[in-house]
Amino acid sequence: MSSTFKPLALAIAFVFAGAAQAAGDEPIQPIEAAKPGDPALVELGKKLYFDPRLSKSGFISCNSCHNLSMGGTDNLKTSIGHNWQKGPINAPTVLNSSFNLAQFWDGRAKTLKDQAGGPIANPGEMAFTHELAVDVLSSIPAYKAEFKKVFKSDAVTIDGVTKAIAAFEETLVTPNSRFDQWLTGKKDALTKDELAGYKLFKESGCTACHNGPAVGGNSFQKMGIVAPYTASSPAEGRVAVTGKDADRFNFKVPTLRNVELTYPYFHDGEATTLTQAVDTMGRLQLGRVFTAVENAQIVAFLKTLTGEQPKFALPILPPSTDATPRPQPF
Amino acid sequence: MSSTFKPLALAIAFVFAGAAQAAGDEPIQPIEAAKPGDPALVELGKKLYFDPRLSKSGFISCNSCHNLSMGGTDNLKTSIGHNWQKGPINAPTVLNSSFNLAQFWDGRAKTLKDQAGGPIANPGEMAFTHELAVDVLSSIPAYKAEFKKVFKSDAVTIDGVTKAIAAFEETLVTPNSRFDQWLTGKKDALTKDELAGYKLFKESGCTACHNGPAVGGNSFQKMGIVAPYTASSPAEGRVAVTGKDADRFNFKVPTLRNVELTYPYFHDGEATTLTQAVDTMGRLQLGRVFTAVENAQIVAFLKTLTGEQPKFALPILPPSTDATPRPQPF
Repeated sequence: MSSTFKPLALAIAFVFAGAAQAAGDEPIQPIEAAKPGDPALVELGKKLYFDPRLSKSGFISCNSCHNLSMGGTDNLKTSIGHNWQKGPINAPTVLNSSFNLAQFWDGRAKTLKDQAGGPIANPGEMAFTHELAVDVLSSIPAYKAEFKKVFKSDAVTIDGVTKAIAAFEETLVTPNSRFDQWLTGKKDALTKDELAGYKLFKESGCTACHNGPAVGGNSFQKMGIVAPYTASSPAEGRVAVTGKDADRFNFKVPTLRNVELTYPYFHDGEATTLTQAVDTMGRLQLGRVFTAVENAQIVAFLKTLTGEQPKFALPILPPSTDATPRPQPF
Repeated sequence: MSSTFKPLALAIAFVFAGAAQAAGDEPIQPIEAAKPGDPALVELGKKLYFDPRLSKSGFISCNSCHNLSMGGTDNLKTSIGHNWQKGPINAPTVLNSSFNLAQFWDGRAKTLKDQAGGPIANPGEMAFTHELAVDVLSSIPAYKAEFKKVFKSDAVTIDGVTKAIAAFEETLVTPNSRFDQWLTGKKDALTKDELAGYKLFKESGCTACHNGPAVGGNSFQKMGIVAPYTASSPAEGRVAVTGKDADRFNFKVPTLRNVELTYPYFHDGEATTLTQAVDTMGRLQLGRVFTAVENAQIVAFLKTLTGEQPKFALPILPPSTDATPRPQPF
């Protein structure tokens, strides 16, 4: 058998080597499937991600605003928080967020683990406290057992909670988009218009910021380089973290992976469609007005960045007990 | 081979016949796994069940209040509706709801299909209209294609929407609880205390209302027979449907399947724990004060009614298009 297959194996190796080289020449690299982490840790994190008992109301979970049925976003301009509060900023996708150089639009969390604790304790979002979240989980024997299994300790801690959520989030990678198929050698994976759009995307300078495996997420850039952007959000970006005036209106460049699913666009969610987002980006960041045809080609290319969505069974959460503190929705 | 297995096959047939007879003598029957419906219809219904675009805000789906991670409920006294409105009544579980003689606490919907349209258009819940829901779905090619495949028509209709949601809900059956294992012959499936609890449950009269495969759901009964119930909810039950004074405070008897997961209890959600619910039911419906030991035994029995939860992959929803009407959360 092996002698029969050798030539084929060599041929495949040759194709892959060629593809890898081609991909290496491009400003965008294929996104690789997540490496499987500790399965018990990931499974615990998945439950916590879907558990609204991490909020004061018992109604809001991580998945409420980073909905994995909808590209890891809520598809709203700005999110709905506790007591229907209007959030100040657009919820970024959780998909491929492990590729970000930092988390949140202003990068104030260095890691996914740091990020995970934020919304739980934010009075405008889940409106809980880390202490109460730990109290709730500690009162549930099935959770205690899972924490013990994973962390070898009887204590449930917020450190463990955020570590588990981050481990789950690290699995939320979307490989094998049509664009990645093209990058890795399947030359008929894109249409003529999509290829023309990619060419425009590169040549007009979009890839100066939107590059790498996540097509963004790896730098902070000013929103409004050529002309100022009038935002509907009060957020001022990176300056909130660094205190430097030069960082005013600097935001993390969002990933364009799955951008077809993550509407509306920009940190204030004011661009409803990809057409609008491409037009605004062209004018304000590049000083270029794309024609309708060019815009449509770029949009066609952007839609090829939709990858395989994470597939997993909806988690079943362990029930509260008589000792569990009850939610306070009203 | 067949001759070797015949005696075993006969023995198995004998055991099952015996179990069936035993189960037949009991007021509660095992709940059978859902018969697989039209897979394409069920799949469409699953997507719609999880799609918050059926609400005005784009934030509330069927699964928000009938959360399949949490026993098909929201585990809140009363639900949170559009703009954080406080609902008037406790959200009943969607699990095994196909066994109910009618839907809603007052039975105002005869079928799951009739029920499914209610919350979408209820201003205090999803706050949308059937027309707008259809407009949203019609603007999404992937939904249009699924509707066409299932209903052989180019038109998306609310009739199709509710039919699909109901078809999905019909699959949400929870077989193989420990109690059902006991009913069908596995005599060591229950502990001594659980069995004692079941004996008490029968002998004290609970099974007068909580019987059948769903352990309830098959009759309307007065809340407060022996002594009046002081509800925190303004709901008056069945009278709202029939207009008959005799139906005041008559509510559909809830299923006790998965009751460990479906806290808090009663139509106003005022019983936080099973202990409390059993105590109140004993006093007000049966005129009986259970001792602490009796109460604990009944609670132990009730927890054996938790069945296998529906297991399925979280659905991925097709994205909106430029033509899709946008949600109005604020």
